[in-house]
Amino acid sequence: MSADRLSLNQATIKYADLPTALRTTREAGIASVGLWREPVNEVGLRTAAAMVADAGLRVSSLCRGGFFTAGDDSARSAALDENRRAIEETAALVAAGAPGSAPVLVLVAGGLPAGDRDLLATRGRVRDAIGALVDDAAAAGVVLAIEPLHPMYAADRGVVSTLGQALDIAEQFPANTVGVVVDTFHVWWDPQLIEQIGRAGRGGRIASYQVCDWITPLPADALLARGMMGDGHIDFPAITRTVAATGYDGDIEVEIFNQEIWDADPGSVAERTVKAFQAHVAPWCQAVASHA
Amino acid sequence: MSADRLSLNQATIKYADLPTALRTTREAGIASVGLWREPVNEVGLRTAAAMVADAGLRVSSLCRGGFFTAGDDSARSAALDENRRAIEETAALVAAGAPGSAPVLVLVAGGLPAGDRDLLATRGRVRDAIGALVDDAAAAGVVLAIEPLHPMYAADRGVVSTLGQALDIAEQFPANTVGVVVDTFHVWWDPQLIEQIGRAGRGGRIASYQVCDWITPLPADALLARGMMGDGHIDFPAITRTVAATGYDGDIEVEIFNQEIWDADPGSVAERTVKAFQAHVAPWCQAVASHA
Repeated sequence: MSADRLSLNQATIKYADLPTALRTTREAGIASVGLWREPVNEVGLRTAAAMVADAGLRVSSLCRGGFFTAGDDSARSAALDENRRAIEETAALVAAGAPGSAPVLVLVAGGLPAGDRDLLATRGRVRDAIGALVDDAAAAGVVLAIEPLHPMYAADRGVVSTLGQALDIAEQFPANTVGVVVDTFHVWWDPQLIEQIGRAGRGGRIASYQVCDWITPLPADALLARGMMGDGHIDFPAITRTVAATGYDGDIEVEIFNQEIWDADPGSVAERTVKAFQAHVAPWCQAVASHA
Repeated sequence: MSADRLSLNQATIKYADLPTALRTTREAGIASVGLWREPVNEVGLRTAAAMVADAGLRVSSLCRGGFFTAGDDSARSAALDENRRAIEETAALVAAGAPGSAPVLVLVAGGLPAGDRDLLATRGRVRDAIGALVDDAAAAGVVLAIEPLHPMYAADRGVVSTLGQALDIAEQFPANTVGVVVDTFHVWWDPQLIEQIGRAGRGGRIASYQVCDWITPLPADALLARGMMGDGHIDFPAITRTVAATGYDGDIEVEIFNQEIWDADPGSVAERTVKAFQAHVAPWCQAVASHA
Protein backbone atom coordinates (compact mmCIF):
# COMPACT_ATOMS: atom_id res chain seq x y z
CA MET A 1 0.00 0.00 0.00
CA SER A 2 1.35 3.38 -0.87
CA ALA A 3 1.61 6.34 1.42
CA ASP A 4 0.81 8.87 -1.33
CA ARG A 5 -1.64 10.77 0.79
CA LEU A 6 0.35 10.73 4.00
CA SER A 7 1.31 14.10 5.40
CA LEU A 8 3.74 14.35 8.29
CA ASN A 9 2.56 16.97 10.73
CA GLN A 10 5.54 18.81 12.13
CA ALA A 11 4.35 18.28 15.68
CA THR A 12 5.19 14.58 15.33
CA ILE A 13 8.87 15.54 15.11
CA LYS A 14 8.50 18.53 17.35
CA TYR A 15 12.18 19.13 18.13
CA ALA A 16 13.17 19.38 14.46
CA ASP A 17 13.44 22.92 13.13
CA LEU A 18 11.77 23.75 9.82
CA PRO A 19 14.67 22.84 7.48
CA THR A 20 15.19 19.56 9.36
CA ALA A 21 11.48 18.77 9.30
CA LEU A 22 11.24 19.39 5.55
CA ARG A 23 14.35 17.33 4.81
CA THR A 24 13.21 14.51 7.10
CA THR A 25 9.81 14.42 5.45
CA ARG A 26 11.23 14.30 1.93
CA GLU A 27 13.89 11.73 2.78
CA ALA A 28 11.23 9.42 4.20
CA GLY A 29 9.43 9.57 0.86
CA ILE A 30 6.55 11.55 2.31
CA ALA A 31 5.12 14.06 -0.18
CA SER A 32 3.23 16.36 2.16
CA VAL A 33 3.82 18.24 5.39
CA GLY A 34 1.60 19.85 8.02
CA LEU A 35 3.29 23.01 9.29
CA TRP A 36 3.19 24.84 12.61
CA ARG A 37 3.40 28.57 13.06
CA GLU A 38 6.16 28.59 15.65
CA PRO A 39 8.90 26.89 13.57
CA VAL A 40 7.74 28.86 10.52
CA ASN A 41 8.11 32.12 12.39
CA GLU A 42 11.49 31.05 13.73
CA VAL A 43 12.90 31.43 10.22
CA GLY A 44 10.42 34.06 9.06
CA LEU A 45 7.51 33.59 6.68
CA ARG A 46 9.32 34.52 3.48
CA THR A 47 12.24 32.19 4.19
CA ALA A 48 9.85 29.44 5.28
CA ALA A 49 7.90 29.72 2.05
CA ALA A 50 11.11 29.51 0.02
CA MET A 51 12.19 26.42 2.00
CA VAL A 52 8.84 24.78 1.37
CA ALA A 53 9.07 25.55 -2.36
CA ASP A 54 12.62 24.14 -2.50
CA ALA A 55 11.53 21.00 -0.70
CA GLY A 56 8.88 20.33 -3.32
CA LEU A 57 6.41 19.17 -0.66
CA ARG A 58 2.70 19.76 -0.51
CA VAL A 59 1.47 21.74 2.48
CA SER A 60 -1.58 20.06 3.99
CA SER A 61 -2.36 22.59 6.75
CA LEU A 62 -0.99 25.21 9.07
CA CYS A 63 -1.41 24.71 12.83
CA ARG A 64 -2.83 26.70 14.38
CA GLY A 65 -5.11 29.58 14.92
CA GLY A 66 -7.96 29.96 17.32
CA PHE A 67 -7.74 30.48 21.08
CA PHE A 68 -10.38 33.14 20.93
CA THR A 69 -12.43 32.53 24.05
CA ALA A 70 -11.22 35.51 26.08
CA GLY A 71 -14.03 37.56 27.55
CA ASP A 72 -12.47 41.01 27.39
CA ASP A 73 -12.38 43.12 24.27
CA SER A 74 -8.67 43.78 24.07
CA ALA A 75 -7.72 40.12 24.38
CA ARG A 76 -10.40 39.24 21.87
CA SER A 77 -9.15 41.83 19.47
CA ALA A 78 -5.55 40.65 19.88
CA ALA A 79 -6.65 37.06 19.18
CA LEU A 80 -8.43 38.13 15.99
CA ASP A 81 -5.33 40.01 14.82
CA GLU A 82 -3.19 36.96 15.53
CA ASN A 83 -5.59 34.83 13.52
CA ARG A 84 -5.48 37.26 10.62
CA ARG A 85 -1.71 36.86 10.57
CA ALA A 86 -2.17 33.09 10.62
CA ILE A 87 -4.54 33.34 7.64
CA GLU A 88 -1.91 35.27 5.68
CA GLU A 89 0.76 32.75 6.64
CA THR A 90 -1.44 29.89 5.49
CA ALA A 91 -2.00 31.50 2.12
CA ALA A 92 1.71 32.22 1.62
CA LEU A 93 2.89 28.75 2.64
CA VAL A 94 0.29 26.97 0.56
CA ALA A 95 1.17 29.12 -2.47
CA ALA A 96 4.75 27.92 -2.02
CA GLY A 97 3.74 24.27 -1.63
CA ALA A 98 3.58 21.72 -4.41
CA PRO A 99 0.33 21.27 -6.38
CA GLY A 100 -2.33 19.67 -4.21
CA SER A 101 -1.47 21.82 -1.21
CA ALA A 102 -4.52 22.66 0.92
CA PRO A 103 -5.14 26.20 2.23
CA VAL A 104 -6.24 24.96 5.65
CA LEU A 105 -5.74 26.84 8.89
CA VAL A 106 -6.45 24.59 11.86
CA LEU A 107 -8.36 26.36 14.64
CA VAL A 108 -8.36 25.29 18.28
CA ALA A 109 -11.15 27.06 20.13
CA GLY A 110 -9.45 27.79 23.43
CA GLY A 111 -10.65 26.93 26.92
CA LEU A 112 -12.73 28.61 29.58
CA PRO A 113 -11.24 31.94 30.64
CA ALA A 114 -9.77 31.84 34.16
CA GLY A 115 -12.55 31.74 36.73
CA ASP A 116 -15.26 31.60 34.06
CA ARG A 117 -17.62 28.62 34.15
CA ASP A 118 -20.04 29.70 31.46
CA LEU A 119 -19.45 27.16 28.71
CA LEU A 120 -22.37 28.35 26.60
CA ALA A 121 -21.20 31.95 26.49
CA THR A 122 -17.62 30.84 25.83
CA ARG A 123 -18.75 28.70 22.95
CA GLY A 124 -20.77 31.62 21.62
CA ARG A 125 -17.60 33.71 21.50
CA VAL A 126 -15.90 31.03 19.41
CA ARG A 127 -18.69 31.25 16.88
CA ASP A 128 -18.52 35.04 16.86
CA ALA A 129 -14.75 35.05 16.39
CA ILE A 130 -15.02 32.75 13.40
CA GLY A 131 -17.71 35.03 12.02
CA ALA A 132 -15.33 37.96 12.41
CA LEU A 133 -12.61 36.12 10.45
CA VAL A 134 -14.65 34.68 7.60
CA ASP A 135 -14.21 37.60 5.20
CA ASP A 136 -10.46 37.69 5.74
CA ALA A 137 -10.22 33.95 5.18
CA ALA A 138 -12.34 34.13 2.03
CA ALA A 139 -10.26 37.01 0.65
CA ALA A 140 -7.09 34.95 1.22
CA GLY A 141 -8.62 31.76 -0.16
CA VAL A 142 -8.05 30.04 3.19
CA VAL A 143 -10.32 27.49 4.88
CA LEU A 144 -10.80 27.95 8.62
CA ALA A 145 -10.86 24.38 9.95
CA ILE A 146 -12.49 24.03 13.36
CA GLU A 147 -10.89 21.16 15.27
CA PRO A 148 -13.07 19.65 17.95
CA LEU A 149 -10.79 18.64 20.82
CA HIS A 150 -11.31 15.66 23.08
CA PRO A 151 -13.65 16.55 25.96
CA MET A 152 -10.79 16.12 28.42
CA TYR A 153 -9.46 19.42 27.09
CA ALA A 154 -12.77 21.30 27.34
CA ALA A 155 -11.80 23.32 30.42
CA ASP A 156 -8.34 24.49 29.50
CA ARG A 157 -7.84 24.15 25.76
CA GLY A 158 -10.88 23.71 23.58
CA VAL A 159 -14.55 24.28 24.37
CA VAL A 160 -15.55 22.74 21.04
CA SER A 161 -15.66 19.05 21.96
CA THR A 162 -17.51 17.15 19.25
CA LEU A 163 -17.67 17.01 15.51
CA GLY A 164 -21.40 17.78 15.66
CA GLN A 165 -20.72 20.92 17.65
CA ALA A 166 -17.95 22.02 15.25
CA LEU A 167 -20.35 21.49 12.34
CA ASP A 168 -23.07 23.48 14.09
CA ILE A 169 -20.67 26.42 13.97
CA ALA A 170 -19.15 25.74 10.54
CA GLU A 171 -22.54 25.41 8.83
CA GLN A 172 -23.35 29.01 9.68
CA PHE A 173 -20.72 30.02 7.09
CA PRO A 174 -19.90 29.10 3.49
CA ALA A 175 -18.40 25.60 3.08
CA ASN A 176 -15.46 26.85 1.07
CA THR A 177 -14.36 29.06 3.96
CA VAL A 178 -15.22 27.19 7.17
CA GLY A 179 -14.74 23.46 7.64
CA VAL A 180 -13.81 20.98 10.34
CA VAL A 181 -10.87 18.76 11.22
CA VAL A 182 -11.57 15.09 11.84
CA ASP A 183 -8.78 13.99 14.20
CA THR A 184 -9.17 10.39 15.29
CA PHE A 185 -7.61 11.06 18.70
CA HIS A 186 -10.21 13.66 19.55
CA VAL A 187 -13.34 12.04 18.13
CA TRP A 188 -12.91 8.24 18.09
CA TRP A 189 -15.08 7.71 21.20
CA ASP A 190 -18.07 9.73 19.93
CA PRO A 191 -21.26 7.65 19.66
CA GLN A 192 -22.36 9.99 16.85
CA LEU A 193 -19.07 9.78 14.95
CA ILE A 194 -20.22 7.90 11.87
CA GLU A 195 -23.28 10.08 11.42
CA GLN A 196 -21.35 13.32 11.97
CA ILE A 197 -18.57 12.35 9.54
CA GLY A 198 -21.31 11.69 7.00
CA ARG A 199 -22.86 15.06 7.71
CA ALA A 200 -19.47 16.77 7.38
CA GLY A 201 -18.80 14.99 4.10
CA ARG A 202 -22.18 15.78 2.56
CA GLY A 203 -21.67 19.43 3.36
CA GLY A 204 -18.14 19.52 1.95
CA ARG A 205 -16.85 20.43 5.39
CA ILE A 206 -13.99 18.00 5.94
CA ALA A 207 -11.00 20.30 5.63
CA SER A 208 -8.51 17.88 7.17
CA TYR A 209 -8.31 14.28 8.31
CA GLN A 210 -5.69 13.65 10.99
CA VAL A 211 -4.74 10.32 12.49
CA CYS A 212 -3.02 9.13 15.63
CA ASP A 213 -3.89 6.58 18.26
CA TRP A 214 -5.36 6.70 21.77
CA ILE A 215 -3.05 4.91 24.14
CA THR A 216 -3.60 3.65 27.69
CA PRO A 217 -2.79 4.14 30.40
CA LEU A 218 -2.92 7.87 29.82
CA PRO A 219 0.52 9.34 30.50
CA ALA A 220 0.99 11.81 33.35
CA ASP A 221 0.75 14.72 30.92
CA ALA A 222 -2.61 14.24 29.22
CA LEU A 223 -1.51 16.47 26.36
CA LEU A 224 1.00 13.80 25.35
CA ALA A 225 -1.43 10.89 25.31
CA ARG A 226 -1.19 10.23 21.58
CA GLY A 227 0.37 7.19 20.03
CA MET A 228 1.44 5.87 16.66
CA MET A 229 -1.37 4.23 14.72
CA GLY A 230 -1.65 0.62 15.83
CA ASP A 231 -0.27 1.23 19.31
CA GLY A 232 -3.65 1.98 20.88
CA HIS A 233 -7.37 1.46 20.77
CA ILE A 234 -8.63 3.31 17.70
CA ASP A 235 -10.26 1.44 14.83
CA PHE A 236 -8.51 3.18 11.91
CA PRO A 237 -10.02 1.01 9.19
CA ALA A 238 -13.58 1.85 10.32
CA ILE A 239 -13.01 5.59 10.70
CA THR A 240 -10.88 5.89 7.55
CA ARG A 241 -13.47 4.05 5.45
CA THR A 242 -16.15 6.37 6.77
CA VAL A 243 -14.11 9.45 5.87
CA ALA A 244 -13.23 8.01 2.45
CA ALA A 245 -16.88 7.19 1.76
CA THR A 246 -17.69 10.91 1.93
CA GLY A 247 -15.37 11.47 -1.02
CA TYR A 248 -12.59 13.09 1.02
CA ASP A 249 -9.47 12.63 -1.06
CA GLY A 250 -7.08 15.09 0.56
CA ASP A 251 -3.91 14.45 2.47
CA ILE A 252 -4.07 12.57 5.75
CA GLU A 253 -1.92 14.04 8.47
CA VAL A 254 -0.19 12.10 11.18
CA GLU A 255 0.04 14.37 14.21
CA ILE A 256 1.40 12.78 17.38
CA PHE A 257 2.20 14.50 20.65
CA ASN A 258 4.21 11.89 22.52
CA GLN A 259 7.36 12.40 24.54
CA GLU A 260 8.95 9.11 23.54
CA ILE A 261 8.38 9.84 19.85
CA TRP A 262 9.69 13.39 20.28
CA ASP A 263 12.82 12.04 21.92
CA ALA A 264 13.52 9.65 19.03
CA ASP A 265 15.51 10.47 15.90
CA PRO A 266 13.23 12.37 13.47
CA GLY A 267 14.25 10.22 10.52
CA SER A 268 13.33 7.01 12.31
CA VAL A 269 10.03 8.53 13.43
CA ALA A 270 9.23 9.47 9.83
CA GLU A 271 10.01 5.93 8.66
CA ARG A 272 7.90 4.45 11.43
CA THR A 273 5.10 6.82 10.49
CA VAL A 274 5.16 5.64 6.88
CA LYS A 275 4.97 1.98 7.97
CA ALA A 276 2.15 2.57 10.44
CA PHE A 277 0.25 4.60 7.88
CA GLN A 278 0.65 1.85 5.28
CA ALA A 279 -0.50 -0.79 7.75
CA HIS A 280 -3.39 0.95 9.50
CA VAL A 281 -4.70 3.73 7.26
CA ALA A 282 -3.70 3.55 3.59
CA PRO A 283 -5.62 0.33 2.73
CA TRP A 284 -8.89 2.01 3.70
CA CYS A 285 -8.45 5.54 2.43
CA GLN A 286 -9.88 5.11 -1.06
CA ALA A 287 -13.62 5.52 -1.47
CA VAL A 288 -15.11 2.23 -2.62
CA ALA A 289 -17.03 2.81 -5.82
CA SER A 290 -20.58 1.56 -5.43
CA HIS A 291 -20.48 -0.32 -8.77
CA ALA A 292 -16.84 -1.38 -8.77
CA MET B 1 -28.98 26.64 52.77
CA SER B 2 -29.54 23.18 54.09
CA ALA B 3 -27.79 20.05 53.00
CA ASP B 4 -30.87 17.86 53.45
CA ARG B 5 -30.44 16.12 50.14
CA LEU B 6 -26.67 15.68 50.33
CA SER B 7 -25.42 12.11 50.26
CA LEU B 8 -21.78 11.36 50.96
CA ASN B 9 -20.53 8.74 48.56
CA GLN B 10 -18.11 6.44 50.34
CA ALA B 11 -15.52 6.84 47.61
CA THR B 12 -14.98 10.43 48.79
CA ILE B 13 -13.55 9.04 52.06
CA LYS B 14 -12.14 5.96 50.42
CA TYR B 15 -9.80 4.86 53.20
CA ALA B 16 -12.55 4.76 55.82
CA ASP B 17 -14.02 1.32 56.44
CA LEU B 18 -17.79 0.95 56.54
CA PRO B 19 -18.35 1.68 60.24
CA THR B 20 -16.06 4.70 60.05
CA ALA B 21 -17.78 5.94 56.90
CA LEU B 22 -21.23 5.65 58.44
CA ARG B 23 -20.16 7.36 61.66
CA THR B 24 -18.34 10.12 59.78
CA THR B 25 -21.39 10.76 57.61
CA ARG B 26 -23.75 10.95 60.56
CA GLU B 27 -21.44 13.11 62.66
CA ALA B 28 -21.18 15.62 59.83
CA GLY B 29 -24.96 15.94 59.86
CA ILE B 30 -25.31 14.24 56.49
CA ALA B 31 -28.47 12.11 56.26
CA SER B 32 -27.62 9.88 53.31
CA VAL B 33 -24.75 7.70 52.14
CA GLY B 34 -23.71 6.19 48.83
CA LEU B 35 -22.18 2.77 49.44
CA TRP B 36 -19.54 0.74 47.63
CA ARG B 37 -19.53 -3.01 47.30
CA GLU B 38 -15.94 -3.57 48.45
CA PRO B 39 -16.27 -2.07 51.97
CA VAL B 40 -19.72 -3.65 52.30
CA ASN B 41 -18.33 -7.06 51.47
CA GLU B 42 -15.41 -6.53 53.83
CA VAL B 43 -17.85 -6.81 56.74
CA GLY B 44 -20.37 -9.03 54.96
CA LEU B 45 -23.76 -8.02 53.61
CA ARG B 46 -25.83 -8.91 56.67
CA THR B 47 -23.52 -7.03 59.04
CA ALA B 48 -23.35 -4.11 56.65
CA ALA B 49 -27.15 -3.90 56.47
CA ALA B 50 -27.35 -3.94 60.27
CA MET B 51 -24.75 -1.18 60.48
CA VAL B 52 -26.67 0.93 57.97
CA ALA B 53 -29.91 0.41 59.93
CA ASP B 54 -28.17 1.37 63.19
CA ALA B 55 -26.74 4.48 61.60
CA GLY B 56 -30.21 5.66 60.61
CA LEU B 57 -28.92 6.91 57.26
CA ARG B 58 -30.61 6.80 53.89
CA VAL B 59 -28.82 4.76 51.24
CA SER B 60 -28.74 6.69 47.96
CA SER B 61 -27.03 4.07 45.79
CA LEU B 62 -24.66 1.14 45.65
CA CYS B 63 -21.54 1.40 43.51
CA ARG B 64 -21.09 -0.49 41.38
CA GLY B 65 -22.07 -3.12 38.92
CA GLY B 66 -21.36 -3.33 35.23
CA PHE B 67 -18.03 -4.14 33.55
CA PHE B 68 -19.74 -6.43 31.13
CA THR B 69 -17.91 -5.79 27.89
CA ALA B 70 -15.95 -9.04 27.75
CA GLY B 71 -16.26 -10.81 24.43
CA ASP B 72 -16.09 -14.41 25.61
CA ASP B 73 -19.03 -16.28 27.04
CA SER B 74 -17.53 -17.39 30.34
CA ALA B 75 -16.34 -13.89 31.27
CA ARG B 76 -19.68 -12.51 30.20
CA SER B 77 -21.53 -15.06 32.29
CA ALA B 78 -19.32 -14.37 35.30
CA ALA B 79 -20.01 -10.65 34.95
CA LEU B 80 -23.75 -11.23 34.86
CA ASP B 81 -23.54 -13.39 38.00
CA GLU B 82 -21.54 -10.69 39.74
CA ASN B 83 -24.16 -8.12 38.78
CA ARG B 84 -26.94 -10.34 40.11
CA ARG B 85 -25.14 -10.41 43.47
CA ALA B 86 -24.86 -6.63 43.30
CA ILE B 87 -28.60 -6.36 42.66
CA GLU B 88 -29.32 -8.44 45.76
CA GLU B 89 -26.91 -6.36 47.81
CA THR B 90 -28.58 -3.16 46.63
CA ALA B 91 -32.01 -4.44 47.68
CA ALA B 92 -30.76 -5.58 51.10
CA LEU B 93 -28.89 -2.37 51.89
CA VAL B 94 -31.70 -0.13 50.75
CA ALA B 95 -34.19 -2.13 52.83
CA ALA B 96 -31.98 -1.43 55.84
CA GLY B 97 -31.65 2.27 55.02
CA ALA B 98 -33.85 5.02 56.40
CA PRO B 99 -37.04 6.02 54.56
CA GLY B 100 -36.21 7.77 51.31
CA SER B 101 -33.45 5.33 50.44
CA ALA B 102 -33.15 4.70 46.70
CA PRO B 103 -32.72 1.19 45.28
CA VAL B 104 -30.11 2.29 42.74
CA LEU B 105 -27.28 0.12 41.48
CA VAL B 106 -24.75 2.23 39.58
CA LEU B 107 -23.44 0.51 36.45
CA VAL B 108 -20.14 1.29 34.76
CA ALA B 109 -20.06 -0.26 31.30
CA GLY B 110 -16.47 -1.44 31.13
CA GLY B 111 -13.89 -0.69 28.47
CA LEU B 112 -12.75 -2.28 25.24
CA PRO B 113 -11.54 -5.84 25.79
CA ALA B 114 -7.76 -6.19 25.37
CA GLY B 115 -6.83 -5.93 21.71
CA ASP B 116 -10.42 -5.26 20.65
CA ARG B 117 -11.07 -2.02 18.75
CA ASP B 118 -14.70 -2.60 17.88
CA LEU B 119 -16.51 0.06 19.90
CA LEU B 120 -19.89 -0.61 18.29
CA ALA B 121 -19.88 -4.30 19.10
CA THR B 122 -18.62 -3.61 22.62
CA ARG B 123 -21.41 -1.13 23.19
CA GLY B 124 -23.87 -3.68 21.86
CA ARG B 125 -22.74 -6.13 24.53
CA VAL B 126 -23.44 -3.53 27.22
CA ARG B 127 -26.98 -3.21 25.99
CA ASP B 128 -27.38 -6.99 25.87
CA ALA B 129 -26.03 -7.44 29.40
CA ILE B 130 -28.48 -4.90 30.77
CA GLY B 131 -31.24 -6.72 28.93
CA ALA B 132 -30.13 -9.94 30.61
CA LEU B 133 -30.33 -8.31 34.05
CA VAL B 134 -33.60 -6.43 33.76
CA ASP B 135 -35.83 -9.19 35.09
CA ASP B 136 -33.60 -9.78 38.10
CA ALA B 137 -33.53 -6.08 38.84
CA ALA B 138 -37.30 -5.76 38.51
CA ALA B 139 -37.85 -8.75 40.78
CA ALA B 140 -35.61 -7.18 43.42
CA GLY B 141 -37.14 -3.72 42.98
CA VAL B 142 -33.75 -2.34 41.99
CA VAL B 143 -33.03 0.33 39.38
CA LEU B 144 -30.05 -0.31 37.11
CA ALA B 145 -28.48 3.10 36.69
CA ILE B 146 -26.24 3.41 33.63
CA GLU B 147 -23.47 5.90 34.31
CA PRO B 148 -21.95 7.48 31.24
CA LEU B 149 -18.25 7.99 31.91
CA HIS B 150 -16.16 10.83 30.58
CA PRO B 151 -14.86 10.02 27.08
CA MET B 152 -11.31 9.92 28.41
CA TYR B 153 -12.25 6.57 29.97
CA ALA B 154 -13.84 5.11 26.82
CA ALA B 155 -10.94 2.78 26.02
CA ASP B 156 -10.25 1.25 29.40
CA ARG B 157 -13.23 1.79 31.68
CA GLY B 158 -16.52 2.76 30.13
CA VAL B 159 -17.63 2.61 26.50
CA VAL B 160 -20.82 4.50 27.34
CA SER B 161 -19.61 8.09 27.07
CA THR B 162 -22.61 10.41 26.91
CA LEU B 163 -25.95 10.83 28.59
CA GLY B 164 -27.65 10.53 25.21
CA GLN B 165 -26.00 7.18 24.62
CA ALA B 166 -26.93 5.94 28.09
CA LEU B 167 -30.53 6.97 27.45
CA ASP B 168 -30.53 5.22 24.08
CA ILE B 169 -29.87 2.02 26.04
CA ALA B 170 -32.06 2.75 29.06
CA GLU B 171 -35.10 3.62 26.95
CA GLN B 172 -35.21 0.10 25.59
CA PHE B 173 -36.35 -1.02 29.05
CA PRO B 174 -38.98 0.06 31.60
CA ALA B 175 -38.20 3.35 33.34
CA ASN B 176 -38.71 1.90 36.80
CA THR B 177 -35.93 -0.63 36.19
CA VAL B 178 -33.31 1.07 34.01
CA GLY B 179 -32.22 4.66 34.49
CA VAL B 180 -29.12 6.81 34.18
CA VAL B 181 -26.69 8.59 36.46
CA VAL B 182 -26.02 12.26 35.83
CA ASP B 183 -22.51 12.82 37.20
CA THR B 184 -21.28 16.36 36.61
CA PHE B 185 -17.66 15.25 36.27
CA HIS B 186 -18.46 12.94 33.39
CA VAL B 187 -20.98 15.03 31.47
CA TRP B 188 -20.34 18.72 32.14
CA TRP B 189 -18.59 19.31 28.79
CA ASP B 190 -21.36 17.77 26.65
CA PRO B 191 -22.85 20.24 24.13
CA GLN B 192 -26.11 18.27 24.36
CA LEU B 193 -26.18 18.21 28.17
CA ILE B 194 -29.19 20.45 28.78
CA GLU B 195 -31.29 18.70 26.18
CA GLN B 196 -30.30 15.21 27.37
CA ILE B 197 -30.99 16.01 31.03
CA GLY B 198 -34.42 17.19 29.93
CA ARG B 199 -34.95 13.99 27.98
CA ALA B 200 -33.86 11.90 30.97
CA GLY B 201 -36.18 13.81 33.26
CA ARG B 202 -39.21 13.59 31.00
CA GLY B 203 -38.73 9.84 30.80
CA GLY B 204 -38.30 9.42 34.54
CA ARG B 205 -34.80 8.10 33.94
CA ILE B 206 -32.67 10.13 36.36
CA ALA B 207 -31.81 7.51 38.95
CA SER B 208 -28.99 9.47 40.54
CA TYR B 209 -27.45 12.92 40.43
CA GLN B 210 -23.79 13.03 41.47
CA VAL B 211 -21.62 16.09 41.82
CA CYS B 212 -17.93 16.81 41.89
CA ASP B 213 -15.72 19.24 40.04
CA TRP B 214 -13.36 19.04 37.06
CA ILE B 215 -9.97 20.36 38.05
CA THR B 216 -7.00 21.40 35.96
CA PRO B 217 -4.31 20.63 35.33
CA LEU B 218 -5.35 16.98 35.21
CA PRO B 219 -3.31 15.06 37.78
CA ALA B 220 -0.91 12.35 36.63
CA ASP B 221 -3.50 9.69 37.39
CA ALA B 222 -6.51 10.69 35.30
CA LEU B 223 -8.77 8.57 37.49
CA LEU B 224 -8.12 10.98 40.36
CA ALA B 225 -8.94 14.16 38.47
CA ARG B 226 -12.00 15.06 40.53
CA GLY B 227 -12.24 17.98 42.86
CA MET B 228 -14.53 19.41 45.52
CA MET B 229 -17.35 21.54 44.13
CA GLY B 230 -16.05 25.06 43.61
CA ASP B 231 -12.43 24.01 43.08
CA GLY B 232 -12.76 23.56 39.33
CA HIS B 233 -14.54 24.56 36.16
CA ILE B 234 -18.04 23.12 36.42
CA ASP B 235 -21.08 25.37 36.51
CA PHE B 236 -23.02 23.66 39.33
CA PRO B 237 -25.83 26.20 39.47
CA ALA B 238 -26.64 25.72 35.77
CA ILE B 239 -26.51 21.92 35.81
CA THR B 240 -28.27 21.60 39.17
CA ARG B 241 -31.10 23.90 38.07
CA THR B 242 -31.52 21.83 34.92
CA VAL B 243 -31.73 18.60 36.91
CA ALA B 244 -34.10 20.18 39.43
CA ALA B 245 -36.33 21.48 36.65
CA THR B 246 -37.03 17.90 35.59
CA GLY B 247 -38.59 17.26 39.00
CA TYR B 248 -35.69 15.17 40.29
CA ASP B 249 -35.97 15.38 44.08
CA GLY B 250 -33.73 12.53 45.19
CA ASP B 251 -30.47 12.64 47.07
CA ILE B 252 -27.46 14.28 45.49
CA GLU B 253 -24.25 12.36 45.95
CA VAL B 254 -20.83 13.85 46.29
CA GLU B 255 -18.36 11.36 44.87
CA ILE B 256 -14.76 12.52 44.62
CA PHE B 257 -11.72 10.48 43.63
CA ASN B 258 -8.83 12.68 44.67
CA GLN B 259 -5.64 11.63 46.39
CA GLU B 260 -5.35 14.76 48.50
CA ILE B 261 -8.92 14.40 49.72
CA TRP B 262 -8.39 10.70 50.41
CA ASP B 263 -5.30 11.51 52.45
CA ALA B 264 -7.19 14.00 54.63
CA ASP B 265 -9.08 13.18 57.82
CA PRO B 266 -12.52 11.76 56.86
CA GLY B 267 -14.34 13.98 59.34
CA SER B 268 -12.82 17.14 57.93
CA VAL B 269 -13.59 15.96 54.40
CA ALA B 270 -17.23 15.39 55.37
CA GLU B 271 -17.45 18.89 56.86
CA ARG B 272 -15.83 20.39 53.79
CA THR B 273 -18.29 18.49 51.63
CA VAL B 274 -21.26 19.93 53.51
CA LYS B 275 -19.95 23.45 53.09
CA ALA B 276 -19.18 23.04 49.38
CA PHE B 277 -22.60 21.48 48.82
CA GLN B 278 -24.31 24.33 50.60
CA ALA B 279 -22.38 26.91 48.61
CA HIS B 280 -22.44 25.41 45.12
CA VAL B 281 -25.36 22.98 44.87
CA ALA B 282 -28.07 23.33 47.52
CA PRO B 283 -29.32 26.80 46.49
CA TRP B 284 -30.23 25.47 43.05
CA CYS B 285 -31.55 22.00 43.79
CA GLN B 286 -35.23 22.88 44.26
CA ALA B 287 -37.38 22.97 41.18
CA VAL B 288 -38.63 26.51 40.67
CA ALA B 289 -42.43 26.45 40.55
CA SER B 290 -43.63 28.13 37.40
CA HIS B 291 -46.16 30.27 39.30
CA ALA B 292 -44.18 30.84 42.48
